[in-house]
Amino acid sequence: MTMNIPGKKVDLETIGEDIFRLIEEMYPICRSITGDGVRKTLAILQRHIPMVVHEIPTGTQVFDWVVPKEWNIRDAYIKNPQKKKIVDFHRSNLHVLNYSVPVKKVLPLAELKHHLFSIPEYPDQIPYRTSYYKESWGFCLSHNDLQTLEDGDYEILIDSSLNEGHLTYAEHYIEGKREDEVLVSCHICHPSLANDNLAGIALSTLLAKHINQTQPEYSYRFLFIPGTIGAITWLALNPDVIRLIKHGLVISGGGDGGAFTYKKSRKGDAEIDRSMTHVLEHYGKKFNIEEFSPYGYDERQYCSPGFNLPVGRLSRTPYGEYPEYHTSADNLDFVKVDNLAETFSVLSSLHHTLENNRTYQNTNPRCEPQLGRRGLYDVIGGHSDSKEAHLAILWVLNLSDGDNSILNIAQRSGISFQNIKEAADSLERVDLLEIVGEG
Amino acid sequence: MTMNIPGKKVDLETIGEDIFRLIEEMYPICRSITGDGVRKTLAILQRHIPMVVHEIPTGTQVFDWVVPKEWNIRDAYIKNPQKKKIVDFHRSNLHVLNYSVPVKKVLPLAELKHHLFSIPEYPDQIPYRTSYYKESWGFCLSHNDLQTLEDGDYEILIDSSLNEGHLTYAEHYIEGKREDEVLVSCHICHPSLANDNLAGIALSTLLAKHINQTQPEYSYRFLFIPGTIGAITWLALNPDVIRLIKHGLVISGGGDGGAFTYKKSRKGDAEIDRSMTHVLEHYGKKFNIEEFSPYGYDERQYCSPGFNLPVGRLSRTPYGEYPEYHTSADNLDFVKVDNLAETFSVLSSLHHTLENNRTYQNTNPRCEPQLGRRGLYDVIGGHSDSKEAHLAILWVLNLSDGDNSILNIAQRSGISFQNIKEAADSLERVDLLEIVGEG
Amino acid sequence: MTMNIPGKKVDLETIGEDIFRLIEEMYPICRSITGDGVRKTLAILQRHIPMVVHEIPTGTQVFDWVVPKEWNIRDAYIKNPQKKKIVDFHRSNLHVLNYSVPVKKVLPLAELKHHLFSIPEYPDQIPYRTSYYKESWGFCLSHNDLQTLEDGDYEILIDSSLNEGHLTYAEHYIEGKREDEVLVSCHICHPSLANDNLAGIALSTLLAKHINQTQPEYSYRFLFIPGTIGAITWLALNPDVIRLIKHGLVISGGGDGGAFTYKKSRKGDAEIDRSMTHVLEHYGKKFNIEEFSPYGYDERQYCSPGFNLPVGRLSRTPYGEYPEYHTSADNLDFVKVDNLAETFSVLSSLHHTLENNRTYQNTNPRCEPQLGRRGLYDVIGGHSDSKEAHLAILWVLNLSDGDNSILNIAQRSGISFQNIKEAADSLERVDLLEIVGEG
Repeated sequence: MTMNIPGKKVDLETIGEDIFRLIEEMYPICRSITGDGVRKTLAILQRHIPMVVHEIPTGTQVFDWVVPKEWNIRDAYIKNPQKKKIVDFHRSNLHVLNYSVPVKKVLPLAELKHHLFSIPEYPDQIPYRTSYYKESWGFCLSHNDLQTLEDGDYEILIDSSLNEGHLTYAEHYIEGKREDEVLVSCHICHPSLANDNLAGIALSTLLAKHINQTQPEYSYRFLFIPGTIGAITWLALNPDVIRLIKHGLVISGGGDGGAFTYKKSRKGDAEIDRSMTHVLEHYGKKFNIEEFSPYGYDERQYCSPGFNLPVGRLSRTPYGEYPEYHTSADNLDFVKVDNLAETFSVLSSLHHTLENNRTYQNTNPRCEPQLGRRGLYDVIGGHSDSKEAHLAILWVLNLSDGDNSILNIAQRSGISFQNIKEAADSLERVDLLEIVGEG
Repeated sequence: MTMNIPGKKVDLETIGEDIFRLIEEMYPICRSITGDGVRKTLAILQRHIPMVVHEIPTGTQVFDWVVPKEWNIRDAYIKNPQKKKIVDFHRSNLHVLNYSVPVKKVLPLAELKHHLFSIPEYPDQIPYRTSYYKESWGFCLSHNDLQTLEDGDYEILIDSSLNEGHLTYAEHYIEGKREDEVLVSCHICHPSLANDNLAGIALSTLLAKHINQTQPEYSYRFLFIPGTIGAITWLALNPDVIRLIKHGLVISGGGDGGAFTYKKSRKGDAEIDRSMTHVLEHYGKKFNIEEFSPYGYDERQYCSPGFNLPVGRLSRTPYGEYPEYHTSADNLDFVKVDNLAETFSVLSSLHHTLENNRTYQNTNPRCEPQLGRRGLYDVIGGHSDSKEAHLAILWVLNLSDGDNSILNIAQRSGISFQNIKEAADSLERVDLLEIVGEG
Repeated sequence: MTMNIPGKKVDLETIGEDIFRLIEEMYPICRSITGDGVRKTLAILQRHIPMVVHEIPTGTQVFDWVVPKEWNIRDAYIKNPQKKKIVDFHRSNLHVLNYSVPVKKVLPLAELKHHLFSIPEYPDQIPYRTSYYKESWGFCLSHNDLQTLEDGDYEILIDSSLNEGHLTYAEHYIEGKREDEVLVSCHICHPSLANDNLAGIALSTLLAKHINQTQPEYSYRFLFIPGTIGAITWLALNPDVIRLIKHGLVISGGGDGGAFTYKKSRKGDAEIDRSMTHVLEHYGKKFNIEEFSPYGYDERQYCSPGFNLPVGRLSRTPYGEYPEYHTSADNLDFVKVDNLAETFSVLSSLHHTLENNRTYQNTNPRCEPQLGRRGLYDVIGGHSDSKEAHLAILWVLNLSDGDNSILNIAQRSGISFQNIKEAADSLERVDLLEIVGEG
């Protein structure tokens, strides 16, 4: 099923385009950690994969936190002294400080400026700012626009509501042969920001769609949740599922052109960490492996010490390290079909690796078996060049002592998981290996 | 109490000057491994810190060794054939081979030369030489002076005594909240050599004075002992104290301008090793970390296999690696107030680290606690810059699972111990941490 | 007994010449994995060391393999259309595909070409090719010669036999003080190839001869066996010996001028691995240490997971990495007396290390013992230069806590095994050490 198998190149481009179109469709919606923007987004995704949508009431205690009031917004603007709309929510939903309380008044520029946010370093870009847990209001605008404002009275409107309601998130579950689960999590709370995280949402959705077409070994659980409070809510409400999670991945970004960046789980040497590292080592593009740190996306919650789940994070350029991050420049021009296709390919290679990892026992452990009479050896000896396929067979035989998974063997030998797996398959077919463990 | 806290800069300079003045005062005295030079030195130190002075009789068996005879010296000279004093103990006490037996005679140059020591590579410098365990006599002089000697009869005098007596050493003990001890050891047996080890003696004394002004967690034991035989004697006579030693440091040098050099204990990963390494990594000056080797100062004895105590050594340029080492050029011009102040600052940071290391348990281990409502979080989200103080809080929460001390957390996070400690303090104040272990 | 002790330089050159002469004597013989070539080769070796020659019948089951038919050859040639012998077994035994079945016929060039092997990259060289396990026939010739062949009918002859017979191998056993064995294995199945592996055979033989002149601690077992099938046969027939093998080495090559290459055993940190690495680190020539891989010579069988013996491999340039490998250019000009002498020296240093490794307990573990009164210390102190011999004594005392062998101490200190051993010997003589373990 892997996408990096030659011959499947065309499919991969199609998938990149599918992912991009899904991003495009979600892009205009104003999302937040609660509210109708999330619901509209999930409705779009449901056309691709069936999901269970959960609505958790405001005030629900989730560990140390409380589900907040639900926020919705219809309109927001600033009119200058000449009554001209100089900031308009309908032109960009980044213009409003996300979670702003309703406000409608006229006030002088000096007072208004306390509620205005811009980025002097990137004067063309509208910043993205939030105030979820302190009631406040504000507008975000480009620094260039901010600079042009003249003294006088400004009319402002934020037609929002912040009321008792619900926090909305969705789960897509794929039942595999095993009860053990792979968790894939992405945050769905950002408004019109293409890479962070419409790319992650769309990649997760298409990956789920893809896995649905297979009969996977593991069960898969895809979470579409608001950042932080969503992960906390899910963890608080699903204590019985947590123990089933064997591997997990947070997907954020994925559409920009930067090197792949995998951030390890807190464990640092979990199978997900070794699998993702191996996939990237053999993918043929630049990549970085980051040690775990307790800052970032929802891996922070999954890897909190009371859970310590084996959950890593895949991005391209890490958040905060590109100038478009959390600004209006993270738009549809910033994410590319090719980048999305590559990221999808890496994700499906990871999936392939997790699904196919096994531990075998060599049934003929004393000396090498005679490969030639089993059709597994080039019969004219003396060549000085050794082929990787033959080497893969020798590595699998040598290390299959019951202690090494084929992922371990791939790592130690430097040969790709795919080639090691093929070697193991061919040896299993001639009864030179027997399976002794999954993963 | 750390000296590297800004605002305390002035105090640090004063301390550097205090250390230098103490070195100046001790400099003229002719010390050895026994005798009145040691007693006079200890009398000076006792004006700064109270000490118990121990007198161990000649002949006392201390493990494989025996306390030697006590050596004292009043005068020594060489008169040339013209009766001119060309070598005079009163001009430099390095002129006499330390522990020389008394001698008074006239002898030809050829015979005298068997008893003369110089350093051809550094022809201006008088070497420092000893003969503690083989009865002998001799003079040390500059190679330039040696070269000028003409044939003829030389009158020599060494007015010394080598008799039954005592080996003298002193202990300064500071009772802390815990019985567990930090051992600080310096050798006091060298004559007029400023860096080796009047610097170490003065630094130890001022550090002790400083700790006396606090209520430390640990008890502290400062040893002022002759090298080798003093450490052996102390270890032999104090079996009950040894089990209390949790951390230890030998201080030698400290006044020269070289990079800091920390030599690890034989254990190699003791808390003292990790603490000192961490302090130097964050001090901002060049430093070297050396693996343990069984050559050097009294760490040799503390780290002998029968004790294997966690005792490291702090120096600037290591002994033997600077041309002034063990010569008359290791004088008051060679040690500088600023260098001494820096070394003191490093020592007090080490003290601070040992004193404040704790292991905590996160009381809210499942997901992050809500820091905002406890005043520990910047309420306007979306900023792309993360502050170290906030990161420190997240690291402490994430790793405080009962297995990681805050020193471990500082090491893994790359954040300074001080900042990690402040984060832990703020979390403890709001009951998000509880202490589960010391160090 | 080490050959790298100065003063023995002359002996070493003599040994190099002895090794070369032995290679010269064996060179003309056409060897294979069975047959009279092996028997003639062993007869030559028996003039140097007594050996037990084993003859294992065709058809004997050895694990997954069966001992093959015995192959012998008397003549082989190709005559061109002009009846001129253009390929002649008597000029080079590489000309015939090793294990070719008998054939005598006339056939057109186009058909003959299916049975011809050459190396286009090295057009002057005759390749070495085999077909042990698939009945076939063929000729090897230089690519230049191949290119000159013109269309027409060629008369070919291979006067070989492939019949029921025996697989022949030999063992040379040296009884040491201990039953535990050191295994030295070399393959004897290659025809006229000087470095691979007449060099290995001759080096093993002279090493055995040398060890015979000593009273070794370990017992030594030298195997002269055909590659792969020979190792498998020996392992299958000697289950009781296998448990005695404490260290093992495969010797292949050794006469070329490349850097020494040691390939670690599958265990990776066995005493043989650490000993050989240490020897090469201190030998003063370039060397490479390779991790284990399941490709190569008979270490593949010894290190198969059902045995996992601590057997490494010593070569100079690894097989397949020099252009002469497995071609007619691996001839008597390719191996040099000096290279052979160096390799012998390394082997004898390894032997010395294995033989002399011990674990001691310091009998005076608390503080250093007084070395001076035992004649082990320079009595005039204060010198800034420390001598390695003195350092070696201190390292041995410090680390001899019963857990560290002298090889461990040599590794940690960076001092040569020989110097550490001498320090241990001198300390044992004055009862400061007592032996607690072998190796």
